[in-house]
Amino acid sequence: MPHASPITTDVDFARDGKQFGHLAVPQSTNSAGWAKCLVPITVIRNGDGPTALLFGGNHGDEFEGPVTLLNLARRLRPEQIRGRVIMVPMLNRPAIAAGTRLSPIDGVNMNRAFPGHPGDTITGMIAHYVSSNLLPLADLVIDIHSGGSSMHMLPSVNMHRLENQPQMERMLEAAHAWRAPYIFLYRDVAGAGLLPSHAEQMGKVTLGTEMGSKAQFGVETLGITSRGVDNVLHWAEILVEPPPTGGSGAASQVVEAGDESDYLMAPTSGIFEPLQELGDQIVRGQVIGRLHDIERPQQPPEEIRTESAGILFARRSVPLTAQGECLAVITRVVDPVSTKS
Amino acid sequence: MPHASPITTDVDFARDGKQFGHLAVPQSTNSAGWAKCLVPITVIRNGDGPTALLFGGNHGDEFEGPVTLLNLARRLRPEQIRGRVIMVPMLNRPAIAAGTRLSPIDGVNMNRAFPGHPGDTITGMIAHYVSSNLLPLADLVIDIHSGGSSMHMLPSVNMHRLENQPQMERMLEAAHAWRAPYIFLYRDVAGAGLLPSHAEQMGKVTLGTEMGSKAQFGVETLGITSRGVDNVLHWAEILVEPPPTGGSGAASQVVEAGDESDYLMAPTSGIFEPLQELGDQIVRGQVIGRLHDIERPQQPPEEIRTESAGILFARRSVPLTAQGECLAVITRVVDPVSTKS
Amino acid sequence: MPHASPITTDVDFARDGKQFGHLAVPQSTNSAGWAKCLVPITVIRNGDGPTALLFGGNHGDEFEGPVTLLNLARRLRPEQIRGRVIMVPMLNRPAIAAGTRLSPIDGVNMNRAFPGHPGDTITGMIAHYVSSNLLPLADLVIDIHSGGSSMHMLPSVNMHRLENQPQMERMLEAAHAWRAPYIFLYRDVAGAGLLPSHAEQMGKVTLGTEMGSKAQFGVETLGITSRGVDNVLHWAEILVEPPPTGGSGAASQVVEAGDESDYLMAPTSGIFEPLQELGDQIVRGQVIGRLHDIERPQQPPEEIRTESAGILFARRSVPLTAQGECLAVITRVVDPVSTKS
Amino acid sequence: MPHASPITTDVDFARDGKQFGHLAVPQSTNSAGWAKCLVPITVIRNGDGPTALLFGGNHGDEFEGPVTLLNLARRLRPEQIRGRVIMVPMLNRPAIAAGTRLSPIDGVNMNRAFPGHPGDTITGMIAHYVSSNLLPLADLVIDIHSGGSSMHMLPSVNMHRLENQPQMERMLEAAHAWRAPYIFLYRDVAGAGLLPSHAEQMGKVTLGTEMGSKAQFGVETLGITSRGVDNVLHWAEILVEPPPTGGSGAASQVVEAGDESDYLMAPTSGIFEPLQELGDQIVRGQVIGRLHDIERPQQPPEEIRTESAGILFARRSVPLTAQGECLAVITRVVDPVSTKS
Amino acid sequence: MPHASPITTDVDFARDGKQFGHLAVPQSTNSAGWAKCLVPITVIRNGDGPTALLFGGNHGDEFEGPVTLLNLARRLRPEQIRGRVIMVPMLNRPAIAAGTRLSPIDGVNMNRAFPGHPGDTITGMIAHYVSSNLLPLADLVIDIHSGGSSMHMLPSVNMHRLENQPQMERMLEAAHAWRAPYIFLYRDVAGAGLLPSHAEQMGKVTLGTEMGSKAQFGVETLGITSRGVDNVLHWAEILVEPPPTGGSGAASQVVEAGDESDYLMAPTSGIFEPLQELGDQIVRGQVIGRLHDIERPQQPPEEIRTESAGILFARRSVPLTAQGECLAVITRVVDPVSTKS
Amino acid sequence: MPHASPITTDVDFARDGKQFGHLAVPQSTNSAGWAKCLVPITVIRNGDGPTALLFGGNHGDEFEGPVTLLNLARRLRPEQIRGRVIMVPMLNRPAIAAGTRLSPIDGVNMNRAFPGHPGDTITGMIAHYVSSNLLPLADLVIDIHSGGSSMHMLPSVNMHRLENQPQMERMLEAAHAWRAPYIFLYRDVAGAGLLPSHAEQMGKVTLGTEMGSKAQFGVETLGITSRGVDNVLHWAEILVEPPPTGGSGAASQVVEAGDESDYLMAPTSGIFEPLQELGDQIVRGQVIGRLHDIERPQQPPEEIRTESAGILFARRSVPLTAQGECLAVITRVVDPVSTKS
Repeated sequence: MPHASPITTDVDFARDGKQFGHLAVPQSTNSAGWAKCLVPITVIRNGDGPTALLFGGNHGDEFEGPVTLLNLARRLRPEQIRGRVIMVPMLNRPAIAAGTRLSPIDGVNMNRAFPGHPGDTITGMIAHYVSSNLLPLADLVIDIHSGGSSMHMLPSVNMHRLENQPQMERMLEAAHAWRAPYIFLYRDVAGAGLLPSHAEQMGKVTLGTEMGSKAQFGVETLGITSRGVDNVLHWAEILVEPPPTGGSGAASQVVEAGDESDYLMAPTSGIFEPLQELGDQIVRGQVIGRLHDIERPQQPPEEIRTESAGILFARRSVPLTAQGECLAVITRVVDPVSTKS
Repeated sequence: MPHASPITTDVDFARDGKQFGHLAVPQSTNSAGWAKCLVPITVIRNGDGPTALLFGGNHGDEFEGPVTLLNLARRLRPEQIRGRVIMVPMLNRPAIAAGTRLSPIDGVNMNRAFPGHPGDTITGMIAHYVSSNLLPLADLVIDIHSGGSSMHMLPSVNMHRLENQPQMERMLEAAHAWRAPYIFLYRDVAGAGLLPSHAEQMGKVTLGTEMGSKAQFGVETLGITSRGVDNVLHWAEILVEPPPTGGSGAASQVVEAGDESDYLMAPTSGIFEPLQELGDQIVRGQVIGRLHDIERPQQPPEEIRTESAGILFARRSVPLTAQGECLAVITRVVDPVSTKS
Repeated sequence: MPHASPITTDVDFARDGKQFGHLAVPQSTNSAGWAKCLVPITVIRNGDGPTALLFGGNHGDEFEGPVTLLNLARRLRPEQIRGRVIMVPMLNRPAIAAGTRLSPIDGVNMNRAFPGHPGDTITGMIAHYVSSNLLPLADLVIDIHSGGSSMHMLPSVNMHRLENQPQMERMLEAAHAWRAPYIFLYRDVAGAGLLPSHAEQMGKVTLGTEMGSKAQFGVETLGITSRGVDNVLHWAEILVEPPPTGGSGAASQVVEAGDESDYLMAPTSGIFEPLQELGDQIVRGQVIGRLHDIERPQQPPEEIRTESAGILFARRSVPLTAQGECLAVITRVVDPVSTKS
Repeated sequence: MPHASPITTDVDFARDGKQFGHLAVPQSTNSAGWAKCLVPITVIRNGDGPTALLFGGNHGDEFEGPVTLLNLARRLRPEQIRGRVIMVPMLNRPAIAAGTRLSPIDGVNMNRAFPGHPGDTITGMIAHYVSSNLLPLADLVIDIHSGGSSMHMLPSVNMHRLENQPQMERMLEAAHAWRAPYIFLYRDVAGAGLLPSHAEQMGKVTLGTEMGSKAQFGVETLGITSRGVDNVLHWAEILVEPPPTGGSGAASQVVEAGDESDYLMAPTSGIFEPLQELGDQIVRGQVIGRLHDIERPQQPPEEIRTESAGILFARRSVPLTAQGECLAVITRVVDPVSTKS
Repeated sequence: MPHASPITTDVDFARDGKQFGHLAVPQSTNSAGWAKCLVPITVIRNGDGPTALLFGGNHGDEFEGPVTLLNLARRLRPEQIRGRVIMVPMLNRPAIAAGTRLSPIDGVNMNRAFPGHPGDTITGMIAHYVSSNLLPLADLVIDIHSGGSSMHMLPSVNMHRLENQPQMERMLEAAHAWRAPYIFLYRDVAGAGLLPSHAEQMGKVTLGTEMGSKAQFGVETLGITSRGVDNVLHWAEILVEPPPTGGSGAASQVVEAGDESDYLMAPTSGIFEPLQELGDQIVRGQVIGRLHDIERPQQPPEEIRTESAGILFARRSVPLTAQGECLAVITRVVDPVSTKS
Repeated sequence: MPHASPITTDVDFARDGKQFGHLAVPQSTNSAGWAKCLVPITVIRNGDGPTALLFGGNHGDEFEGPVTLLNLARRLRPEQIRGRVIMVPMLNRPAIAAGTRLSPIDGVNMNRAFPGHPGDTITGMIAHYVSSNLLPLADLVIDIHSGGSSMHMLPSVNMHRLENQPQMERMLEAAHAWRAPYIFLYRDVAGAGLLPSHAEQMGKVTLGTEMGSKAQFGVETLGITSRGVDNVLHWAEILVEPPPTGGSGAASQVVEAGDESDYLMAPTSGIFEPLQELGDQIVRGQVIGRLHDIERPQQPPEEIRTESAGILFARRSVPLTAQGECLAVITRVVDPVSTKS
């Protein structure tokens, strides 16, 4: 292998039982010439069977994944499963410690760094380890995200529309098993390099999520996340017994935001005053918010009108807004049949 | 006057009509030797009558006040009032532009800088202008706050318990006029220097608020804030016609958090997972959340138990938490009669 | 196309009339997970004809280009031209907002980032869009620079000496049309990756400029820039009518600084005291300035002697100087005939 | 003396001859627990006679004073004078090393820190030493300033209008002796604490200057500064022989900018395009420049109109401008007789 | 008391037994509006008797005190003492967490902030609590320092020369009880505001230390510190049994550095190459090191010659040196008798 | 050559005599558009013969190399040698000026940047020049390192175990010639890109060192370094006369740390208290230090136990420690015969 990763680990992926360990990522800093960034990893295995690979903390300002997976790693006992569950609750460990979306060490967005390279700065070096050493072990990949610091989101499981119809159907089945309020189909509008894209391309059953946001972080969104992971592990026949809450919850609604115009960006900087809230039905051209100019208080605020119609699926959660920052995402309900491309 | 403020203004407080202007605060920076920080001020006057002095943006991460007062300043016509309304929607103007609680220029908390001094750094210089030039003009003072970046809060109008019983009664009457869900009585547990404290000591009818937080910022909290300001201006006989929504809303519940033990601080750093939400009834010793240690994922999280009982009135909205940061505030419902000290 | 740009635009390059739009560059920041950096672009088209592509703000501390092109974009009417004028007045938009030469986001010098790659950080991503999507549209390319924050410069239009003689002759003709005081022939002494180099290699008639500096920014240099752009657009038969001031101005003098020794770098750090000014005739070995050592005031300042002779074409405009920073550039007048290599 | 300065010096102010030494200002930093900030000072004495006290570098982005005084300190021989010349060429030594107006250590503007206190942070501690230990030694005080990083200025000697008529007359006489193009009378519009104000209040013949700016820094402004200091030292009968260039130069024009409206501040942020230059005659309401909004290129720039008439005496030298930064200063020629208040 | 501290504590100083608690210092930050800085404090009491008050971490880059006192707080049992031991192992808690001499919050040197004021920024607020609430409780005060990040030091107990002869004699007796290699008498050469100075002025038996440095931090210096504290607690009749190692160690040598010239400061910046080591006997004018100029490698390094003679007691431990930073301290052995002033 | 370096030099490697010059590395900064980073280089040549290439300052917090080579460059006369000595005393010049391990310009570790590329940021651009322009000139390469800011080290000459047995034997012979206390055999545990690795791969006789640390920097370690370089130059038959101290010193002990478990990383963050010192014999499982948790003073410190046995060869020199930082390195004495792989 010409590009072996310099990252090592103290867990044995083939061993039965539960192991708490680390990915040891070499780093050299001004305060420690020789150091390792220790990214926690937990492996639980009980004989042969499928492997689920669960990630939290791909972005460092999204804590639904870390809390759910830290709790799951401590709670789940090997005898409850068949096969294997690998958990990396805080994938971008430096970003989690800083509470920032991007890595504070190299400023890189982990979710645009895939597949990565061993010679990259730390974020790409971790991405490379994931794509070359962890993803090949998996049948099911879950990457738990939320709106983080900047976006209120309706809780959803999400995925791209894939060309591979059987894979797409398996993924939709897995998504429905989660029993989140929404299943969200998206297309990349901002470049490649996502962890889920890479897993999808490897043919894995891959689920992403947007489980609320830092502003919505709480009992309800943590419950949807935690129960959903259990539900999908049971669907994948890894978790043997159905989770106690598995049958609860209504069916998920499938929505899609596939047009550039579904993503409203701030035309100028200002204080964003929302006039609509998540879940509201929006018609095309509706004023969903206003931008107040800090330097010109006498001037009426700029009205933000939608360019498409549908459900207000996400909106900016931070009043202070810079030009170009996303203010809202509009989705439309999709006929489950039409999701077959 | 030995300590005249170097701050000037282009509004004439005695003139009838509506004026948009600025407080011009001298500052010298590395990019401009001679500059003014322009703090917007709006004065609306219609003959003699009482004066209301309204502040937003005392903290730069709290935007309920700025949005409400910017809208009010543009909406309110002189003929709708008797007397005078003075609005400073972004009191800590540099902090509002940065979206930070403290001033980015001198790192000072405006709400601990009163009464200030003309020789202070910029925050204290502005505080001094407020206490020496604006507060003397006022009969009614409203300082609109919220939980800002770090705390979810039940929406409330608030005040200290005052020794002066007639002033206290007038203030409670004004607070009830707001028709916020809660009226919150607090005692300073963290030093002096608050704008409302200073106004109260001058004998003014003074209302503070905690109108949600950055995480809750939205249609509902902005509505409570905007309607409440109208209601109180009408109660003060400044706004002539009753506001259309003035009669709506249930009566406010009066709550109090007067003990040090009502404020739960994080015993160590970690990721805070809340187990209770705002409005929940809490018994003494109840586990309301857990702190997950980032460096020790195998270790069970530390349970956070309350030291008092009552309503969960506020909780930390940011998962990542440093030792000593406030996790929760517990309040108890107070008999309206007992508010007479 | 294997490396499609993730940058999109809302202008239609084939449409007649005037359009103001943006290049929307995807970016993810800690304050907005989903955002676009909006780089303004203006397209004016009137039927078939040549295309001029005009850039300002390649460096963020050079404002002659932005002001000239913002004014031109608003002033120029489609009916005044034949063909097409594409203007990007603030190419390194984040650097312009910061007033810094390098991008404040990735620290990259835009004018060393060509041709760029879609997987680069933001500066290289923009460079790639320019080289793959904009330059192919152009017949004439103008990249307006100045000395920026650090260098006083005699106003000039500039270019490399090219191997391709017909292209070189066309470019000299265009340069003379500008009617700037100087035409400056330079060779790259600090690596590749310049926007003009890339345009030249594509065979475009390419003009760079050094229109004064931040210190010289004013009525005169803005006039030379603005009139020159008009003159060249008329020369290119895009601007139909001759500009009113087109005939004014003396012929340009052609100068060259082709030796490493023409660029004097500070031998040590200190306060630079110039003893000669722009345009002065310098003999070899002349003392053109002195460096005062801040830590050793008693010690005589270090004399800066030239290693070549000619016109003092540029000198450092900032007194405080670090070792290795450029203090002066010496040029020699070139016989117009000899510019044929 | 209850507030003795902790600053010490190795020069003996009473000794004849020339001494180069330092003011040793105690400081404790993270890289050196025990350290001294060494502020250079030169004392030249030749028997009894008047004392001139010369300062440069009160602001760290103004290098006309440091270069002039460093050259003078090395050039001037004791036998050329009668009495004493004390020079502090880089008063705010940390700011000079950083090239910033304000001290990089405490962010303080030295020229608002007078009279200072020994318990202040470093800038006020130095100011206190100047006011308590140096100013009492002086008959003549010169504090050399310029427009620094942000303002183009017509070269001037300046002063306040003083109540004390004999002092004012002596000061005007000294100012005329300088033979700068302008003598500029100003009133403090931005608070107290200036070095010259403090010296004036102590009854000293006090001259300030605005000798161009960082943008104008060069052979001409350094010449006006250097010759002027010599001329005034000769006027004060300290420099025995008339300086060779002393008789040259036209008489200075006396101008004044005494109204708040003479100082034009930017109404909003943007790119400032000047339409007039220094020395131009301006009528009231004239458009002297325009502000281009970076976020709204389609929108016409905001026109900057003067509120008073006279000579354009200073204008902002940096195109990128924040709201409230000074764009221009207008002065009017004053009848020399009328300068007697 | 007009200036009550806003700092609270959960320890009861009058209670018998051992308590671990905190000083809760109110602070408001951009990430937590309501927070407390928790400064650990341990109180051990066993009936009536003298009170020892022990501080570590006055400077945040000196860890001998924190390690010694954290170990002592856990090891010492109430029944081993008579009276009371109060320990604050990390007085400048924010600086300890950052590993910096100065507080990272306000940039203040805790050991120049005494006696402090409740309205100060956090460092002075803590200093005020110490001087108003803790020092009055004490008979014996120990403030454990070392050379921190920048100075190698011979291990010493230290104190000022006091006017009060009986207090001085008690303090010398206590210092000898420590059995450190040296007792160091110093005079303040850099302003007032030290914790030990304030304690001395209150008449307390006060010991400071310089126990090596960050570079020397290790088994030996920690041993001298830990055994010394035990020895002095036994001398003070608080620790009942003599510590097992109490009788070991030679008698301390008493040295003094009372002249400004004993402290050698770097004349210019450079790389400091020491030519002598701690404990070496130095003669006046001896070259003890050299400064290499980074920008002028060809130039011979500047020789650093002493201005006094004696023992090299301290030297800079960091090669990279800025002008004015302390390079060396020379002490002379003092006749124990002569310490009676 | 497709990838020519943009770095130039003013020294002529083929010329006899001594030359002090620079590598001129182009850089563009916000304070100087056109600048060169000047990396000093000294070439001493005396006719034909072998070439030694000596580096210091590969890491900017390691000053043993810079001081030794700056002294050697000034001391060594051409007539003392045969062949050539090329010295680069401060290879990472920007890092040396900052005193940091990594470059302050691009944050890159020079010793992981080899072989580099001309299109890299500055550190890789310098690495590329070394690998393409300097290493080919050399027979003997010495890269002087130490533990820098974070590690105490036993002084050693070091190298990898190489496959090439004759090269390895030559290198061990050279290493023994140094007469350092230890010869340290290491394997890369943290990625590739080292300068010595690259030189070894080119077949050069290559020596690295770990000459103490910033904490140990002083007369002794500088002596071992300086004498060792002389000894090796004499061994290489470049230095003609044996150095006066060449015969002194005992034979070096050969040690090795080849297992991941020989490098102990901090399991959590805290204050590291060492219980063993350099040179101590350690058994497997021995407690060599303790980590004190800053937030939990009551809790016993975490004991650090070794996972291998041998000599404590290095330990962290900074008490404050982050999770994953190296606390200790254990080596074992190797039979000189066994070094033949």
